[in-house]
Amino acid sequence: MEFKILKNKLHESIQHVSKAITNRTTIPILSGIKIDAYDQEVILTASDTEISIQSFIPKEIEDNPVIEIIREGNVVLPAKFFVEIIRKLPGEYVEIKVDSSFQTTIKSGTSELQIIGLDPEEYPVLPSIEENNSIMLASDLLKSMIKQTSFSISTNESTPILTGILWNLSNKNLKFVATDRHRLASREISNIEVSEDLNLGNIVISGKTLNELNKLLPDQNQMIHIVFANNQVLFKIDSILFYTRILDGIYPDTSKIIPQTFKTEIIVPTKLFLEAIDRAYLLSRENQTNIVKMIIRDHEEIEITSSLTSLGKITEQVKAERIDGELIQISFNSKYMLDALKVIDSENIQIGITGTMSPIIIKPSEDTNMLHLILPYRTTN
Amino acid sequence: MEFKILKNKLHESIQHVSKAITNRTTIPILSGIKIDAYDQEVILTASDTEISIQSFIPKEIEDNPVIEIIREGNVVLPAKFFVEIIRKLPGEYVEIKVDSSFQTTIKSGTSELQIIGLDPEEYPVLPSIEENNSIMLASDLLKSMIKQTSFSISTNESTPILTGILWNLSNKNLKFVATDRHRLASREISNIEVSEDLNLGNIVISGKTLNELNKLLPDQNQMIHIVFANNQVLFKIDSILFYTRILDGIYPDTSKIIPQTFKTEIIVPTKLFLEAIDRAYLLSRENQTNIVKMIIRDHEEIEITSSLTSLGKITEQVKAERIDGELIQISFNSKYMLDALKVIDSENIQIGITGTMSPIIIKPSEDTNMLHLILPYRTTN
Repeated sequence: MEFKILKNKLHESIQHVSKAITNRTTIPILSGIKIDAYDQEVILTASDTEISIQSFIPKEIEDNPVIEIIREGNVVLPAKFFVEIIRKLPGEYVEIKVDSSFQTTIKSGTSELQIIGLDPEEYPVLPSIEENNSIMLASDLLKSMIKQTSFSISTNESTPILTGILWNLSNKNLKFVATDRHRLASREISNIEVSEDLNLGNIVISGKTLNELNKLLPDQNQMIHIVFANNQVLFKIDSILFYTRILDGIYPDTSKIIPQTFKTEIIVPTKLFLEAIDRAYLLSRENQTNIVKMIIRDHEEIEITSSLTSLGKITEQVKAERIDGELIQISFNSKYMLDALKVIDSENIQIGITGTMSPIIIKPSEDTNMLHLILPYRTTN
Repeated sequence: MEFKILKNKLHESIQHVSKAITNRTTIPILSGIKIDAYDQEVILTASDTEISIQSFIPKEIEDNPVIEIIREGNVVLPAKFFVEIIRKLPGEYVEIKVDSSFQTTIKSGTSELQIIGLDPEEYPVLPSIEENNSIMLASDLLKSMIKQTSFSISTNESTPILTGILWNLSNKNLKFVATDRHRLASREISNIEVSEDLNLGNIVISGKTLNELNKLLPDQNQMIHIVFANNQVLFKIDSILFYTRILDGIYPDTSKIIPQTFKTEIIVPTKLFLEAIDRAYLLSRENQTNIVKMIIRDHEEIEITSSLTSLGKITEQVKAERIDGELIQISFNSKYMLDALKVIDSENIQIGITGTMSPIIIKPSEDTNMLHLILPYRTTN
């Protein structure tokens, strides 16, 4: 293998695939990045078995040469060092040359490197995915759907299925659900572009993986092609392929725990409510429970309080837009409430309460596509 | 105590003094910030016994009211919570009221806090410092002197004196020295403004403390008044007083280890040399030794190499402006070299070598006020 490549393009590609590199891999070859040089392109591949990322660098971009291929071939180079050194090389171009024992010479400007490469034959083969079942989703929409749900996944590895986000697709309606049994976040969109009459059962993808994907998704409104196979999902982003496996297991049916009618309904400005909760959270977290109490004494204002014997007490008043139904007081985890409020971008939120021991529902007041649920704390008074 | 204060001014002052708060204090009262409200000003104080910081908030700033004092008095409030909550309060003003048992009520907009305060009588009294021995130094100059030497202090607590920076003042010449026995950094300035004919022996101030001070020093060319007492130094910055103690012990005499003549003298562009060392460092640190070799084969170029059996080898060529004297090869710690190069802002540096086992000297080529010394590694070839 021998080729010359624009340093910046190589660096950009390395940055993309390196998101799949972990330091704690037990498979030595996966601590490397695989480089395949073909006549028309160079492909970089990295994988941690959970996620695999490929980046394609074309020979030319808009008629400008990017790569000059001298001899096709491939090699695996140690990722950590490769990622850091390429960016710092002094030349505009980088020349990479591999001999028969995978000894690799990298030249750029006044620098010359000899790197001990690994045999690319040892590198795992990526799954081949048939493109029958697929959807198209705007990048910015996918990004916000992940952001608006992923904070609610469980971090407890004893229930692996809850560390994922549930994808449910039926009648061109895509819904994400995440729950850790104490709270739940859901977000849906309708009328998406699907191949044929695709309906997917419950597909669960690791929330951590989707957060990694989020870093690669462009902010612009660019279409992402998502392909579903037996136990894999493939995201096609521009010149990047992002593979991940589907989590095994049955996701719990969460539809029954969401109350449909409320005894108390509140409409309150999102920003004011968020700021009040945030201040109460500062005190409540000193206690590690994050517990705050919301008191509805009249149909005008919400009172938020939190107290801690050793530190003191905070009392917040938030003027509501509307309070309908029963006066009530209810306690909950202020951190969970904050997390939910931070991903809601509508001006007002609607809070629905059915009783001191029933789930609290938080929704944007003008939008039915998003829902957050928080289980209350049982308190003595 | 009762007063009303502009939130932003209070927040700014809290930010300043909170640099003296540590989480690991064993003296409960020092986990708090002391507030003294007087007729004409409010004073905040924080201390970790090593550093004490006071911030003065005047009643008015340029005829605009900042504080409205209702009743003088004082209290100590828990720093961690106080620092965070003030910034987030909803009002433009904050009202603070303390009752006889130090129970403190803080009101701002729709927020009300009850905080359990501590008895200010228990708070340690700051040292009173006579202002006989003092110097004036421009803030930006002091900042750069600290930055250009502090990285060379020892982090080993078994030789506490070397964790400090030596200040030596004689004939209006101020010199900073820092060394960890493997490297040394020194920086001096002449003709500073001193009180009378002040000459200071060797005063050593903790490098960590000076780095904390650096965060409070303004970037502008503002004069800082520095007062030296028996075992304390006081820095007066605007409305801030920063106290720190002088380290006990005798600082080693470092003058004898600095060679005055060289067998090899090199002038090389700082940026090119730094970048070459940086790349070699990336490989060398995989070995934990950071060892690189500098080879002078001719009077044109410097070669930098580093190699690691498991990873490979890097070879860098740097064209020198001038190489005089003997051809030589010498090994050293690339991290130490990088640290020194990063604080030199002149276009070219001068490297002086007296032998493979003698200290390497690095200086800005057009400036005699700064000097860095690195001890070489003994290598087999």
